[in-house]
Amino acid sequence: MIVKNKLLNYSDMVIYQNNEWFAFSLDSVLLADFVVLTNTEKNIIDLCCGNAPIGMLLSKRTNANIVSVEIQKEICDLANKSIKENNLEKQIKIINEDINKLNYNSDTFDIVTVNPPYFKNEVKLNANTIKSIARHEIKVSLDDIFKITKKILKNGGKFYMVHRVSRLLEILDKMRIYNLEPKELKFVYSKVNSDSEIVLIKGIKSGKPGMKVSSFVVVHNEDGSYCDEIRRMYG
Amino acid sequence: MIVKNKLLNYSDMVIYQNNEWFAFSLDSVLLADFVVLTNTEKNIIDLCCGNAPIGMLLSKRTNANIVSVEIQKEICDLANKSIKENNLEKQIKIINEDINKLNYNSDTFDIVTVNPPYFKNEVKLNANTIKSIARHEIKVSLDDIFKITKKILKNGGKFYMVHRVSRLLEILDKMRIYNLEPKELKFVYSKVNSDSEIVLIKGIKSGKPGMKVSSFVVVHNEDGSYCDEIRRMYG
Repeated sequence: MIVKNKLLNYSDMVIYQNNEWFAFSLDSVLLADFVVLTNTEKNIIDLCCGNAPIGMLLSKRTNANIVSVEIQKEICDLANKSIKENNLEKQIKIINEDINKLNYNSDTFDIVTVNPPYFKNEVKLNANTIKSIARHEIKVSLDDIFKITKKILKNGGKFYMVHRVSRLLEILDKMRIYNLEPKELKFVYSKVNSDSEIVLIKGIKSGKPGMKVSSFVVVHNEDGSYCDEIRRMYG
Repeated sequence: MIVKNKLLNYSDMVIYQNNEWFAFSLDSVLLADFVVLTNTEKNIIDLCCGNAPIGMLLSKRTNANIVSVEIQKEICDLANKSIKENNLEKQIKIINEDINKLNYNSDTFDIVTVNPPYFKNEVKLNANTIKSIARHEIKVSLDDIFKITKKILKNGGKFYMVHRVSRLLEILDKMRIYNLEPKELKFVYSKVNSDSEIVLIKGIKSGKPGMKVSSFVVVHNEDGSYCDEIRRMYG
């Protein structure tokens, strides 16, 4: 069922979702918050955008043109519905396309963001459902993401990704193969004593080696409620 | 000046140090605490042992034979003084040797630990002082450490290292070159909002790929006092 939610508590922005297919998650909020904006960016692209929460969240902090790309038509329709209702058509363009078929010139974007499918497509999935395509690397792989990013990101441009820690080594290896130098990691811990399962990653195209690990994020207090930093992000 | 300190607050163990040369640091306490012992280990080796705090800390938790290796004669003398005073001569053997010249058979040790010199020897240091050899890679490099570890560690044996986050990518790359699969990282943050500068690293010789990031350690409260977890380690 398609529902209309507030994007963030403090915001008037609304987002259409369908919980059976795809609902935007905390990971998108964390990634958007992790992106540094300097008011000099002209073009930003969000790959594997889903119902476009990252583009919408960034639009509140920048005047740059934002392109959000999603391969699944049904999810694009949701995104377009949200963009229209929030009067963001001038700033955000939703593209229903396979990222491997994007036709931008080299060095077009100042920033690439991506919250990709997290899981390998190792188990032969029975059905190419909307949900499994959003969660598993059925239509898009890490290599696909890095390959297109390497092409369309400007030299010195920033790459921001959220992903599972279990894929981190593979990601750090591939980023360097594709000339995206890892510059910063920020680990997300569900609770104070949990292992970290989610990591925010920043890279710079043709950047100099030198990676920092910045302060961590804890999501939940012991009682399960959100910690202050998460409440700040949601408003 | 050589001084005799308690190794840990709660312990009767003493450790001799000379603060002009080398005083054991929190990093050694963190590394010893990070080591998992199962009571099945027979042989443990601590490379670049300094005045041997790690060997002494581990001796409180295991009956395994412990070898602690230090290249600098003056620091070995301190270590031997401590070993003798604590009646640990039967369990801990201090070896005054360059780790590149160690002559153990392959697959001798169940565990290798190391708190190595942290800094590259890029700037031509004026003097090979005791302190600069302990802090800079003048006599030992990361490659030296991984090369000897690869040889003397058993297949399936555990490798534990503490190092600076700024060297992490290099370490993760080299570990895999030397067949030491990275299995766990634990980041240490000086304060809640600090970047992490120190990381604890666990590898397994010939281990299967799959690395977790376990719960973080924060060292200081906002007022500068030690956090509870550090107080627990020190007793």
